[in-house]
Amino acid sequence: MRQFVVLGHEVPLTADLSLDDLTGAGRLDVLCRCVTSAFCLSHAIREDTRVWLVLQDEFTIRFEGSELRNLNPDERSTAALVRGALDEKDGAIGHMAAESSPGVSISRRGLAGVLDELDGTLLELHEAGGPVVESDVPGDPAFVLSDHRNFTAREAELLAERADRRVRLGPERLHADHAITVAHNWLDTGGFARY
Amino acid sequence: MRQFVVLGHEVPLTADLSLDDLTGAGRLDVLCRCVTSAFCLSHAIREDTRVWLVLQDEFTIRFEGSELRNLNPDERSTAALVRGALDEKDGAIGHMAAESSPGVSISRRGLAGVLDELDGTLLELHEAGGPVVESDVPGDPAFVLSDHRNFTAREAELLAERADRRVRLGPERLHADHAITVAHNWLDTGGFARY
Repeated sequence: MRQFVVLGHEVPLTADLSLDDLTGAGRLDVLCRCVTSAFCLSHAIREDTRVWLVLQDEFTIRFEGSELRNLNPDERSTAALVRGALDEKDGAIGHMAAESSPGVSISRRGLAGVLDELDGTLLELHEAGGPVVESDVPGDPAFVLSDHRNFTAREAELLAERADRRVRLGPERLHADHAITVAHNWLDTGGFARY
Repeated sequence: MRQFVVLGHEVPLTADLSLDDLTGAGRLDVLCRCVTSAFCLSHAIREDTRVWLVLQDEFTIRFEGSELRNLNPDERSTAALVRGALDEKDGAIGHMAAESSPGVSISRRGLAGVLDELDGTLLELHEAGGPVVESDVPGDPAFVLSDHRNFTAREAELLAERADRRVRLGPERLHADHAITVAHNWLDTGGFARY
């Protein structure tokens, strides 16, 4: 299982966001591309992948690759899935999730709550991390990334405490969705070895 | 200079396409993500990059990294740049390009015409190619990729004739925009060596 936790700091927690202005909706476009980068292969879905979108450290939308039915590679239709999940947020009570469409559910959880759910190797993607190629390829990696904002002090502290490794994917600072694509490629190729 | 040639087989050649339905506009969403993957770094543009969107083998929209001013990472605003270029296509006469916004221009050229303009090493991204890591990192690479469709017989023939190398980026079939991200990472790291 590959997992990606993406921290959205500014996406509004209301379902009345406009699909015509995803950048204006707290840069929801970034999060949508993270979801599609995590799941979309050419004419296939990566079923062994799970994505957690943590919104304002308060609600988390989970996408489960093995159950997803309506995911398309474009931003707008993915944003509609996010909007649908936000529309169900009152049904999320305690840590019980509310499902809004196949494979998509929302729960009342921040980053700490999501980290509690993860198993496998926790990797923080960070420009100050070590080269990813110096690290062996974990069997069940969970990557944590931030949207267009840096990690907050509290998030950075949590990750420093909980992450197994801090790695970087190259000399350039990548968008979160591009980082997910590179991370998948590193895993697909067993560390750039199998093609 | 890094160049990416992306073949769009179904995008309509009219400027009246709807920004609310990019997938319905011949999968323009795919081409828009190719453009943003080629240029967008976190808070920066890759200035030493050029993208050619070849539309129906008839018109080509060129994006010049060093001149781009209004490119944002989301699909919709990038689609507006494509629409703006299509709006200027009557001004493209012979091989003379018409500029529609800073760094964006359209010309009457198909794939063959674009290949004539390329210098450097021509790489065809193809699932039957050799592992990219077995290839040295060229100084001025030009990659050719296709949208959600395979190369047509004519395109495949042209590429077989003109490409210097045929490479693959991993064992999975990637979307074109994800392939661009991986190709950049390969180049950024000098063949997964420099981080």
